[in-house]
Amino acid sequence: MNKYPKHLLSLITHLQKLPSVGKKTAERFAFQLLEWNRDDLLNLGNTLNTLKEKIPYCEECGCLMEEFTCTFCKSKNRDQCSICIIASPRDAYAIEGTGNFLGLYHVLGTLLSPLEGRTSDQLNLPHLTKRILSLGVKEVILALDSTIEGDATALFLKEELNSKDIKISRLAFGLPIGSSLDFIDEGTLSQALSGRQPLH
Amino acid sequence: MNKYPKHLLSLITHLQKLPSVGKKTAERFAFQLLEWNRDDLLNLGNTLNTLKEKIPYCEECGCLMEEFTCTFCKSKNRDQCSICIIASPRDAYAIEGTGNFLGLYHVLGTLLSPLEGRTSDQLNLPHLTKRILSLGVKEVILALDSTIEGDATALFLKEELNSKDIKISRLAFGLPIGSSLDFIDEGTLSQALSGRQPLH
Repeated sequence: MNKYPKHLLSLITHLQKLPSVGKKTAERFAFQLLEWNRDDLLNLGNTLNTLKEKIPYCEECGCLMEEFTCTFCKSKNRDQCSICIIASPRDAYAIEGTGNFLGLYHVLGTLLSPLEGRTSDQLNLPHLTKRILSLGVKEVILALDSTIEGDATALFLKEELNSKDIKISRLAFGLPIGSSLDFIDEGTLSQALSGRQPLH
Repeated sequence: MNKYPKHLLSLITHLQKLPSVGKKTAERFAFQLLEWNRDDLLNLGNTLNTLKEKIPYCEECGCLMEEFTCTFCKSKNRDQCSICIIASPRDAYAIEGTGNFLGLYHVLGTLLSPLEGRTSDQLNLPHLTKRILSLGVKEVILALDSTIEGDATALFLKEELNSKDIKISRLAFGLPIGSSLDFIDEGTLSQALSGRQPLH
């Protein structure tokens, strides 16, 4: 029934492609954007227009580049012998946030999911193996989601990389910091039990 | 701690200006936008760049215009004697959705709120009075929020327009359709009682 101007409809259609944005939210965004001043709109518009050019992916590790330089690969302070395998470039920033890892990253770009047609071909394993060899990597950390897809990918990578003389580990499963046992699901609790750590 | 590329940071900052979008959501949006294809990004970017030009406000009623024509003011099928006063252009589409009003609109642009510094000067009353006179309006419908600001604005407009020989009404308050008495707040119930309608 709503006969929005065509240009507004096109804006709403585009905004609906954002994650968990439905028609109502897209409409709210669109009407608020109409109230933005011209400069802010031009800024956002131009940022979007040049997004792909200004933030390319590193050909080496798949992370986002800052001004055509990968801050991870090109840093001299990072341990080249340790590589952390992540699903998306975003995960690198989460791990950087901990300040607890100073090695390199390797972005898979996807996780295995036969149901959704994502098979091992898409993981670009030859490139990973080449990097491991050329960098002389001694430790591989799998920082993947704790989901069926994450588990499948972790198992697959373990099999593939096992033959090489490298230490393979995966992020620990257990209680989130600050959580109470009352609210923890059985799966997590069971993993926390079997992964129990000696107290020093 | 997160050292995103500068361009990405600027995108995240802009997206945070959208209603109820915090840092986390803006980050999710930004990383998803990075995965959009170039055409979609350019489309959205250009839509935003030309938003103000392509969707101007009607100088007469304040609604959004389609290709420089106000679909409301310029329509010959609409009753010029009845005017519906709304706070924002968006409300017109909600009322159009009912298919129950065929008069003209008048956008106030804001509601009275002394606390936030929105006074009656900003309502542009002279323009409204001029329109009422020149169109020969016989009925004014106040379709304003049921909030303190909406109530204040409705009272103010009633006082201002009362001297003229026009019927002034406000949207009815009462039970939303499909609601159950159990879940209705006392304020609504009290309004529904005092506004009770004879059964025919």
